[in-house]
Amino acid sequence: MTCITLFRFMIKNKIIGSQFLGVENVLSQFKSICGEDRVSVGQAVREQHGRDESMHRCCAPDAVVFPHCVEEVSALAKLCHLYNVPMIPFGTGTGLEGGVGALEGGVCFSLRNMDKILDLHMEDFDVTVEPGVTRKTLNTYLRDTGLWFPVDPGADASLCGMAATSASGTNAVRYGTMRENVLNLEVVLADGTIIHTAGKGRRPRKTAAGYNLTNLFVGSEGTLGIITKTTLRLYGIPEAMVSAVCTFPSVQTAVDSTVQILQAGVPIARIEFLDEVMMDACNRYSSLSYPVNPTLFLEFHGSEGSLEEQVKTTEAITQSNDGSNFQWAQDAETRNRLWAARHNAWYAAQALRPGCKAYSTDVCVPLSQLPQIIVETKEDLIKNNLTGPIAGHVGDGNFHCLMVVDPNDKDELHRLHAFTDRLARRALALDGTCTGEHGVGLGKRSLLQEELGCHTIHLMQSLKYTLDPKNLMNPGKVLLPFSRESRQG
Amino acid sequence: MTCITLFRFMIKNKIIGSQFLGVENVLSQFKSICGEDRVSVGQAVREQHGRDESMHRCCAPDAVVFPHCVEEVSALAKLCHLYNVPMIPFGTGTGLEGGVGALEGGVCFSLRNMDKILDLHMEDFDVTVEPGVTRKTLNTYLRDTGLWFPVDPGADASLCGMAATSASGTNAVRYGTMRENVLNLEVVLADGTIIHTAGKGRRPRKTAAGYNLTNLFVGSEGTLGIITKTTLRLYGIPEAMVSAVCTFPSVQTAVDSTVQILQAGVPIARIEFLDEVMMDACNRYSSLSYPVNPTLFLEFHGSEGSLEEQVKTTEAITQSNDGSNFQWAQDAETRNRLWAARHNAWYAAQALRPGCKAYSTDVCVPLSQLPQIIVETKEDLIKNNLTGPIAGHVGDGNFHCLMVVDPNDKDELHRLHAFTDRLARRALALDGTCTGEHGVGLGKRSLLQEELGCHTIHLMQSLKYTLDPKNLMNPGKVLLPFSRESRQG
Repeated sequence: MTCITLFRFMIKNKIIGSQFLGVENVLSQFKSICGEDRVSVGQAVREQHGRDESMHRCCAPDAVVFPHCVEEVSALAKLCHLYNVPMIPFGTGTGLEGGVGALEGGVCFSLRNMDKILDLHMEDFDVTVEPGVTRKTLNTYLRDTGLWFPVDPGADASLCGMAATSASGTNAVRYGTMRENVLNLEVVLADGTIIHTAGKGRRPRKTAAGYNLTNLFVGSEGTLGIITKTTLRLYGIPEAMVSAVCTFPSVQTAVDSTVQILQAGVPIARIEFLDEVMMDACNRYSSLSYPVNPTLFLEFHGSEGSLEEQVKTTEAITQSNDGSNFQWAQDAETRNRLWAARHNAWYAAQALRPGCKAYSTDVCVPLSQLPQIIVETKEDLIKNNLTGPIAGHVGDGNFHCLMVVDPNDKDELHRLHAFTDRLARRALALDGTCTGEHGVGLGKRSLLQEELGCHTIHLMQSLKYTLDPKNLMNPGKVLLPFSRESRQG
Repeated sequence: MTCITLFRFMIKNKIIGSQFLGVENVLSQFKSICGEDRVSVGQAVREQHGRDESMHRCCAPDAVVFPHCVEEVSALAKLCHLYNVPMIPFGTGTGLEGGVGALEGGVCFSLRNMDKILDLHMEDFDVTVEPGVTRKTLNTYLRDTGLWFPVDPGADASLCGMAATSASGTNAVRYGTMRENVLNLEVVLADGTIIHTAGKGRRPRKTAAGYNLTNLFVGSEGTLGIITKTTLRLYGIPEAMVSAVCTFPSVQTAVDSTVQILQAGVPIARIEFLDEVMMDACNRYSSLSYPVNPTLFLEFHGSEGSLEEQVKTTEAITQSNDGSNFQWAQDAETRNRLWAARHNAWYAAQALRPGCKAYSTDVCVPLSQLPQIIVETKEDLIKNNLTGPIAGHVGDGNFHCLMVVDPNDKDELHRLHAFTDRLARRALALDGTCTGEHGVGLGKRSLLQEELGCHTIHLMQSLKYTLDPKNLMNPGKVLLPFSRESRQG
C-alpha cells in the first residue's frame, strides 16, 4: 500500500483526521501563553487579518494572536494541535492569492511583533531575521554596511512571508528568487515542534547534507509549518546603478530584445515589460510622460566600467530591434521615481476604473513563447471587453495582466474568470506555469492539478499529510480538499 | 499521533515494512522486460556496479539491469516493489561517498543506455537529458550553439547523477550548484509511478506552483526515487575567459583575498584554493612549476572589457594581501592544462603515496571561518602524521582534504577516521556542514544527525517513509537505519 493510499484509507476510516473545534475552548490558554493583550477576538482585528491584497473575499479567523518569540509560537501551536484548531500565519497581508483567509476558521498567527534582525555576518554575506522584519526594513538597516538583499516583489513584504510564498519580482533575473536566497529556516510544525531546515544556526553558502528541507518550506504558503526565522544570502551593493526606458513598435520587438540581451550574457539587473495600456496608466498615475508604446524598463548594476559596456551592448540590441533611444534615469532620485512608477502599476491599473477591484494574473512561460502568449492575451482582452494592462518580468518569462473589474458586474466577473482560465491554459500549453511568483493560494488549486498531473499532486498531498496529518496548517490552500481532489484525480 | 510516530508504530507492528526477497525470484521477469542481454548477474559486472571512486568497500548488487527507457525502469521498479527487492540507481560511478553500494543486495539500475539529449531549446536556455548523458557529452553537443552547462564537479559525471547528489564544483561560486540549475525532473518512484516534479514538459525559468519537489529529489542520493530525466538551465558561453594563478605567503592572506574579491562584486567564475602540499603534488603530477605556496587558481568570464576590469580589481586586492603577480593562462590550451591540473588533484594526491587509497573530506563553512578551520586542520594533519593536501572551492567556503592512506595500516586508518570526525565537528562548530557537495552517502550518516538535530532528522525520515515505505530505494544511504536512529534520537 503506497503512503498516499494508506492516508486515504485512514482518513476514510477515521483512523486519522480531525474535527475542528471552536477556538473558544483555548482562548484562556492562549492568553496564559501570550498575555491578555496579545490575543484578540475583536471583529475589526479579525477582519483585518482575514484578507490580503487580492479580490478573494475576507475569511476572518476566530482569533488573532501576536506571539513575541518562537517559544510562544510553539506553545500556541501545541495547543491548536491538541484542540484541532486551524493555524494561519500572517506577515504583512500583502499576498495576492488569498493565502491568509481563514477558510475553516481557526487562529491567525500575526508575526509582526517578532521583528528582530539577528546575526548579521557581513563577511559571510548572510543575515537572519524574524518574521516581522520587512524587506525595506532590512535594507534600511543594511544601508551603511555596503550590503543589501535584492529580492523585490514590489510590496514591502515580510521576509519570512516572502520565503513562505517563494516571492521574486523585478530583480529575480539577476539575483534569483527566494528559492535561491534562503539558506536556512526555523519552522514551527503543526504539532509545535521547532525545526531548523539546515540545522540550528547553520549558514554555509552551499550544502549537500540530506534532503533539501529549506526549499520544501519555501513556497509552501503556510501549509506545512510557520516560518519563524529565515537566514538570507546578502549581496554587495553595486558600485553603480543606472536605469533606462526604451519603447518599441511591437511586443515582439521588445521581447526579442530581451532574449538577445540575455543571450549576449549581459548581467542585467531588471528588465521589465509594460504594454501600451500599462504605460498609459503609469503615465497618468505617476505623472510621467513616456510614449504610449510597448516599453522596457531596464536596470544595470555593476562597476562604472562594466555599466558602460552593459549599456552599449544592450543599446545595440534594442536599436537593431527598432527600439527608441534610451531615456535615462541615472541619479538615485530619478531611478527611484521610475521604479516607484513600475511598482505602483497595481494602483495605476486600479485608477483606470475608480471603484473597481484589481486582480493580477501570474503566468510564466519559456522566453521564446512570450511574444505569442502576450499577443494572444491582448487580443483576448479586447475581444472580451476586459481591462487588463500588462506588466511583466520578461527576463524570467513571467508577466501579469492587472485585471480591473467591477465587482458588482456579474457578467464582467464571469468574463474575467473565463479569461484567466484561458490565459493559464495558454501558458500550460506552452510548457509554462499558471503561477511564476504569486503562488497557488485559493484560486489556482484546480489549475495546479492540470499543470502537474495527478501523480505529482498525489505526492504533494502525501507530503502535506506527512507533515500535517490533521490538516491544521493553513487548510484549504495550495491543494484542493482531499475528497474533492480524490474524485478528480 | 504524528506521522513519524505512526510509521514507527506500523513498522514495529509489521503493519508495513518489508523483508527483502532474493533477486532470483524476479530475474526471468526482468529479462522479459529488458531482454536477456540487459540483465546481468555476472560477478565482474556486479562488482563494477557495487562501488564508486571512494574508499567504501564494494557491495555488489545481486543483479544489474540496463533499461533503455523510462517505461522499462517503471516496469522493473514495479516488480522490485512487488517482490521487496532493493533498487540502486547507477550513473557513472564517480561518486565519492559510497552511494552506489548495494548494502542489502538488490538490483542496480545502470542507466547508461538511456543516453539521449532531448528537447534543446536554445532561445530558452534549457535542455532535457536522459541519465546516460554526461556533463562533457552535453557540452560537446552544445559547442556550436553558443550555450553551455557550467556546473563542473571535475569528474565526467552523468547529469542525472549530478542532480541526485546535488553536485557542484569549481564553477558554483558564479553559476550555482545543481539545486539552482535543475528546472524539472522525471522520477520513477519506489512503486514504479512516473512523476514529473514540475509537471510533464514544463520548463519556465521560475515557478511558484506548489511544493518544490524538484529540489526535494535533487540531493536525495537515490533514496527517494530514480531520476530518469533532468531539464537543465543553460548559459551563454562567455565571450572571453581567462585564468590566472596567484600565490600567497599564508592561508589567511589567500582567503582574505577571496572574501574581498566577492565583497567587491567581482563576478568571478572560479576561485580555487590549493595549499602548498597540494601545489607540490600538482606540480609533480601535471609537470607544472608553480611556486610551492598557498595558491589561488582564478578564472574570469565575460566580455573583453568586463574581463579587464574584473582582473584589475582582483589584482589590486591580491596585491594588497601580499599575493604574487598573476601567472596567466589566456589561450584555451593553457587554461585547459591549468584546470586539468586542478581537476587531477585527486590523482596527484594519490600519486604522493603509490599503492595507497584516497578519501576526500568535504566540509563547508561560512567564508569568514575558512582561515581558522584550514589552519587548524593543517596543524591536525601534521600532528597526526597524515597526508591530506587541501584543495577548495573557497568562494563557497567549501574545501577538501584529499586524504591518502595505506588501507592495510590499521593505525593509520584509525587516525584517519578520528581526523575526519574532528574536521567535521570543527566545521559544525563554525556554523558549517559536514558535506558541501559530495553528499552523505554511507560515511556521514551519524554526522548528519549531529548537524541537523533529531527533529530535522525525524522529518527527513518521515519524508523517506512517505515516498518509500518499504525502504527499497537505495536503502541505508543518507539516513541511518530506522531502529538505530530511533535509539539515538
